[in-house]
Amino acid sequence: MTTHSSDKAIFTRRESEARSYSRGFDTVFTKASGTEMTDAEGRTYIDFLAGCSSLNYGHNDPDMKAALIDHISRDGVAMGLDLHTDAKGAFLGAFEENILKPRDMDHKVMFMGPTGANAVEAAMKLARKVTGRHNVIAFTNGFHGVTLGALAATGNGYHRGAAGVTPSGVSRLPYDGYMGEGVDTTDYIAKVLDDASSGVDAPAAIILETVQGEGGLNAANREWVEKVGKLAHEHGALLIIDDIQAGCGRTGSFFSFDGWDVQPDIVTMAKSASGFGLPMALMLIKPEHDIFGPAEHNGTFRGNTHAFVTAKVAIEKFWSDDTFKGEIAEKTEILEGELKKLAAMVPGAYLKGRGMMRGVDVGTGELASEICGKAFEKGLIVETSGPNDEVVKILAPLTTPVETFRKGLSILLESASEVTSNNSIAAE
Amino acid sequence: MTTHSSDKAIFTRRESEARSYSRGFDTVFTKASGTEMTDAEGRTYIDFLAGCSSLNYGHNDPDMKAALIDHISRDGVAMGLDLHTDAKGAFLGAFEENILKPRDMDHKVMFMGPTGANAVEAAMKLARKVTGRHNVIAFTNGFHGVTLGALAATGNGYHRGAAGVTPSGVSRLPYDGYMGEGVDTTDYIAKVLDDASSGVDAPAAIILETVQGEGGLNAANREWVEKVGKLAHEHGALLIIDDIQAGCGRTGSFFSFDGWDVQPDIVTMAKSASGFGLPMALMLIKPEHDIFGPAEHNGTFRGNTHAFVTAKVAIEKFWSDDTFKGEIAEKTEILEGELKKLAAMVPGAYLKGRGMMRGVDVGTGELASEICGKAFEKGLIVETSGPNDEVVKILAPLTTPVETFRKGLSILLESASEVTSNNSIAAE
Amino acid sequence: MTTHSSDKAIFTRRESEARSYSRGFDTVFTKASGTEMTDAEGRTYIDFLAGCSSLNYGHNDPDMKAALIDHISRDGVAMGLDLHTDAKGAFLGAFEENILKPRDMDHKVMFMGPTGANAVEAAMKLARKVTGRHNVIAFTNGFHGVTLGALAATGNGYHRGAAGVTPSGVSRLPYDGYMGEGVDTTDYIAKVLDDASSGVDAPAAIILETVQGEGGLNAANREWVEKVGKLAHEHGALLIIDDIQAGCGRTGSFFSFDGWDVQPDIVTMAKSASGFGLPMALMLIKPEHDIFGPAEHNGTFRGNTHAFVTAKVAIEKFWSDDTFKGEIAEKTEILEGELKKLAAMVPGAYLKGRGMMRGVDVGTGELASEICGKAFEKGLIVETSGPNDEVVKILAPLTTPVETFRKGLSILLESASEVTSNNSIAAE
Amino acid sequence: MTTHSSDKAIFTRRESEARSYSRGFDTVFTKASGTEMTDAEGRTYIDFLAGCSSLNYGHNDPDMKAALIDHISRDGVAMGLDLHTDAKGAFLGAFEENILKPRDMDHKVMFMGPTGANAVEAAMKLARKVTGRHNVIAFTNGFHGVTLGALAATGNGYHRGAAGVTPSGVSRLPYDGYMGEGVDTTDYIAKVLDDASSGVDAPAAIILETVQGEGGLNAANREWVEKVGKLAHEHGALLIIDDIQAGCGRTGSFFSFDGWDVQPDIVTMAKSASGFGLPMALMLIKPEHDIFGPAEHNGTFRGNTHAFVTAKVAIEKFWSDDTFKGEIAEKTEILEGELKKLAAMVPGAYLKGRGMMRGVDVGTGELASEICGKAFEKGLIVETSGPNDEVVKILAPLTTPVETFRKGLSILLESASEVTSNNSIAAE
Repeated sequence: MTTHSSDKAIFTRRESEARSYSRGFDTVFTKASGTEMTDAEGRTYIDFLAGCSSLNYGHNDPDMKAALIDHISRDGVAMGLDLHTDAKGAFLGAFEENILKPRDMDHKVMFMGPTGANAVEAAMKLARKVTGRHNVIAFTNGFHGVTLGALAATGNGYHRGAAGVTPSGVSRLPYDGYMGEGVDTTDYIAKVLDDASSGVDAPAAIILETVQGEGGLNAANREWVEKVGKLAHEHGALLIIDDIQAGCGRTGSFFSFDGWDVQPDIVTMAKSASGFGLPMALMLIKPEHDIFGPAEHNGTFRGNTHAFVTAKVAIEKFWSDDTFKGEIAEKTEILEGELKKLAAMVPGAYLKGRGMMRGVDVGTGELASEICGKAFEKGLIVETSGPNDEVVKILAPLTTPVETFRKGLSILLESASEVTSNNSIAAE
Repeated sequence: MTTHSSDKAIFTRRESEARSYSRGFDTVFTKASGTEMTDAEGRTYIDFLAGCSSLNYGHNDPDMKAALIDHISRDGVAMGLDLHTDAKGAFLGAFEENILKPRDMDHKVMFMGPTGANAVEAAMKLARKVTGRHNVIAFTNGFHGVTLGALAATGNGYHRGAAGVTPSGVSRLPYDGYMGEGVDTTDYIAKVLDDASSGVDAPAAIILETVQGEGGLNAANREWVEKVGKLAHEHGALLIIDDIQAGCGRTGSFFSFDGWDVQPDIVTMAKSASGFGLPMALMLIKPEHDIFGPAEHNGTFRGNTHAFVTAKVAIEKFWSDDTFKGEIAEKTEILEGELKKLAAMVPGAYLKGRGMMRGVDVGTGELASEICGKAFEKGLIVETSGPNDEVVKILAPLTTPVETFRKGLSILLESASEVTSNNSIAAE
Repeated sequence: MTTHSSDKAIFTRRESEARSYSRGFDTVFTKASGTEMTDAEGRTYIDFLAGCSSLNYGHNDPDMKAALIDHISRDGVAMGLDLHTDAKGAFLGAFEENILKPRDMDHKVMFMGPTGANAVEAAMKLARKVTGRHNVIAFTNGFHGVTLGALAATGNGYHRGAAGVTPSGVSRLPYDGYMGEGVDTTDYIAKVLDDASSGVDAPAAIILETVQGEGGLNAANREWVEKVGKLAHEHGALLIIDDIQAGCGRTGSFFSFDGWDVQPDIVTMAKSASGFGLPMALMLIKPEHDIFGPAEHNGTFRGNTHAFVTAKVAIEKFWSDDTFKGEIAEKTEILEGELKKLAAMVPGAYLKGRGMMRGVDVGTGELASEICGKAFEKGLIVETSGPNDEVVKILAPLTTPVETFRKGLSILLESASEVTSNNSIAAE
Repeated sequence: MTTHSSDKAIFTRRESEARSYSRGFDTVFTKASGTEMTDAEGRTYIDFLAGCSSLNYGHNDPDMKAALIDHISRDGVAMGLDLHTDAKGAFLGAFEENILKPRDMDHKVMFMGPTGANAVEAAMKLARKVTGRHNVIAFTNGFHGVTLGALAATGNGYHRGAAGVTPSGVSRLPYDGYMGEGVDTTDYIAKVLDDASSGVDAPAAIILETVQGEGGLNAANREWVEKVGKLAHEHGALLIIDDIQAGCGRTGSFFSFDGWDVQPDIVTMAKSASGFGLPMALMLIKPEHDIFGPAEHNGTFRGNTHAFVTAKVAIEKFWSDDTFKGEIAEKTEILEGELKKLAAMVPGAYLKGRGMMRGVDVGTGELASEICGKAFEKGLIVETSGPNDEVVKILAPLTTPVETFRKGLSILLESASEVTSNNSIAAE
């Protein structure tokens, strides 16, 4: 397709004002491969946004691409409702073999409408059905989606403000570290659960992200997550780990809680689940809680078969042994080192997150935004997060070649350096 | 991939009990083309379910398939968040040119999480934001999805029962025909809207399907829809037409309300929007109501670029002139004729629906289910709908060749005939 | 106490703008006896408002007054929480003997916070506990109070608009006659209850007033109420009759449904329950549904002992035989006759209500208000009701002497006559 | 009335199982004067429950009693809806003169249905109307009533469990001291209010009791209340002080916050407001927030005129100078001394509360209940409170003569001593 410079007019003319990323990265993208995206002008960008962690394996991974083209070419099923298809069976087999079995997880897999929010809605409904309770405990700065059920669990005020009705059924408690250094928030959680008149009703579930992506890359300590998991179970509640953003290798292992002493009853997944950025969502359910009736929670696109095809390749290619894990660890070290340099440029700035889900809190949304804007000028796609967008967030594909990775980071540091020295000059 | 008879074990072992269609059509599908699906045993089925109207143009349409393979082959963007991509631009251009302009529709297009439920959630939120009101009027037997916000508008008790919390913000009113032949339910709707103490709060929106697909193929009369639209506007409410199942040609024209004197403020679309069965959802918004802030309603998979690629082809191939409309009309006539024969086999049975969205109410879910089961044995995929699954529902691809179409219908009639004569014999 | 003309200043200065009746009847009342009230200027008014049916036995009934003074004089308990007191025991005994036993009612009596709204809240909670369902069916134009739980059941938009959060847990259905002459709304009620996807969830209860006082004096037919009661029981729901305004003789018998073939599981009472206008609320509960735990629904003023004292006298004085019933019947006849004359003065006006709970719909709130205003000038206290205050409502004490009653009615007719002829003149 | 030993049968036979206090104090009370109640057997009890703080001035205060008898005798209005009556005017005048003016409070007074819960419902609705926000912040262990709107703010799980629908519109935060000695919970409150993605929506109001009566006599520090008040105002929220139990002198001054640097926008009052234990509720509203329309929040018993009569006497008799305040201070000292002795009897027990709103946490509900049971045997009425009823709560009339007060306390100590030594013996 020929792309003309006039192309952007159609978006202004016909796309809703609800569009967002296109405002910060105002160009028309036409190609993408690995960690790079190319726009209609032929300009190439390093992509450290990676579909908000939906492209952990990069754009258009060649093996997934080949498998997908093969599937389509041979008239493989594209849309399968929730019928059995060979592609779904093959994905389930690969997932069982490479992910569940090695971790002794006996969970069942449920596919729902292919959005993370839909997975969260299904998880909350299921927990309520299992326990006969209505209350779900969610945490400060948590983000779980914007459909009404999930939105009740989401902390973000901008999104909550659009609810239109009073969200209900969720109690909010402080996440790890929320009350400052000295305070272990599990003490408070334990107290409200023990206290029959705390006003926090006996919960159906506690839902948490081990690293809060949208909330500002707040990483909970392992001990905190383990303690919360135990509290949930002691009080008859299910533990839901929302691994939509932190899962699929983002924190260094497939699940963000691998190796921890924590037994989630439900794990929600989406974003990188398909490996290729295709819409796919699922949840893992302990078999004893697998009590939805047929289609009790349903949806049309539960069987996006293309996604099963690429997801199977992703599982087998990256998770059949520990090689990939090792590569992530290596890049994590580089990332930490460089981001500490960035943090050192801004008084009070500090590193946040875990594994390859990292950022630097630079204090204000204005500064973070300036840095990202400057980086985009220089060919790097990078975004902010946090309550006031004050965190420069790096979600590079986990497969990024070291050289590209270093190049991207150096653009970022350069941008930060320019912005901060400009600001210093302006301030003088 | 080789398929073994053991293949189904993985589904039992690892897929949640929430799975549903796979129970009625218990085989593993491996290929699909046009109106036919093939299973692992090499058996071929005529598909009159068509992804619940997500495959209006059939499976793996060759032109969409070619465009998609081309896109993937040249490393076109697969996952684009809500960035500008050439594929999205091209889709918007084709949609504007072939759909919006000819109808003088100045609507803006919003993409959201790629499920119909997500479109409905966004539509209800937007209507509430626009009006500052919380109440949404929905109808008996309406189906709008199962995430919490949409579920409040959905009538189905099985799905509502899984909510886990009290749904709120929706008033239920009787759909066209719900109170029997003699009663025009718009009189009641008008009365509760006029009456300051009716208990039906001034609505933000009235949401309706022109044909209720899941609700039993209840088709509203044009006059009823027009009247309801006028009532909405007279009372400061938005009219939301949920065209998720009835749109994209299913009733004979692109929109189910084409040519009617009705001005929906919002139209929700999903299912066949991508043309290929890929996850995609959108809503059309009158520009004066396009007031969501950037990302105020957001989601990761708003840019399933593969879907834009196929959707563009679908729009241009089928809707650039009236040829396709004519073909649908022709098949509609055949369908009506054959289904009347089916109806004649069962005392009290009658034809329901509109266009190619048709069914026969055979009185009980048991009988409908027996007929569909028998049809499947004979190589036809066909499903039930309605409050008690009492309607045999035909949602054949609109592109089905006449010969195949007649063959499918003859299997259906044969099945009905066998089941009903068996039942008569058994009854004797 | 001496009353000065300056007395009203304190109300303007210190009483909230939420005050209402005092705006229409703008004087300071100092004494009241039987059907008459006297103001600070010594002016006497005939009271056809009667505390909105809280004073069915008139102001300061001499026997209740004597018993109350005696009780206070001998240091009888005034405030008894929900402790056993002799006064409560005596009331329960009298109520059992004169009300429950003669009607073969085995109901238990529960006292709650002394407002009708509190009785409704308790009734709805109990029905939900008994059935494990959340939905309560309430009717168009119903009025059940303005605390949040009761408000969800109330139809009045002005009051609903003040909720501040989205009311939930109530489905609205059309009251008897709401859909016009030819339509039996129980057909619709039956249909939505039978229909698993009607969107009206299986109800915990159906709550209704046999005559809707605030809603405009809409009187349901006996057959309609009986049918609704049967439908409730067939569908596993409790029938709650809210007899707060229509009970205690207002419609001609103690309960508004006396002699009808209807078995309410719960009856809510307040207003005239104490006989003297003192705050008191109670509900009658079929013993099998008496499953609240101790204090599960509680409140401080459940034992307004003064109210028990007067309530006992009221029960014994007026309901130990049929004399009072006969007197009401006699006055009802007078009332009907006179109100028909009133109706005849206004084109389109018509008589509404039942028994001594009567009014005339004069078409507009403006006219009704003018008539009441004129009447007040002439010494009659009478109010409006209905969605647009279009009904002139007469709620005279049931004990009003015939002469006073006729005098009040003649003032009313005179007022109507003057207002309507003035209007005619103005229109010319 | 003659009272027979058979009297209790009527309660078992006809009073709902929801009755509660009568189970712990299982006798029939017939008379009450000052701090003493007498039962049908002629036995006299010292009353340290005092209608749950509704009888701060004791039973049947002679001056109120005389005024009330006089009012009734002269046919004063008993039931006045919200009409102007001389009695209401006189109360408002006395309240303005003796309470509002000396404190420079320009609040308006609103009367609603005469229960504390109704006052809380009205306060929450008004705050939501004033701010256009839906969220109300309430605290752990708070108690504000059991009607649905108020119940959402109440912490008690037993009462919340009876809601029947999902309560909504309230965020729960930790009360003063809830997180242990070292933690100032206002830090957390400030943080969630400052944090745009805390998940605690911008509040319409913060509602608090300065001493949580039902929650276990938790007394907030003055500094904490002042800080919370400032936080509310800084964040555009109204401060609602629920002084229903702690007001009317209970903590030593008329309002529980007298002399503090705190400006409540709304103060809710009930319980002892009438002085005589008669049902009465009101709220004080800053004039700029007095924006309810006429009857927007209404109710039948807003004008319990008898309560106005006694309330006026109470205000003038006890609050026209500081004498009464001094007497309370004196008794408070005695109370503290004696309760410390009680606390010393039980390992780990400690004194709670403030002023004459005091208790001893004895560790378990069983022990607290045993002590109260023993006390009742010895002629003292005293109750428990707290999440597990673990606090022996003393709410003696503030007017209790010192001798009687000491006698009651000595019964309590004796009872505690007997119970604890019995338990020690049993444990050996």
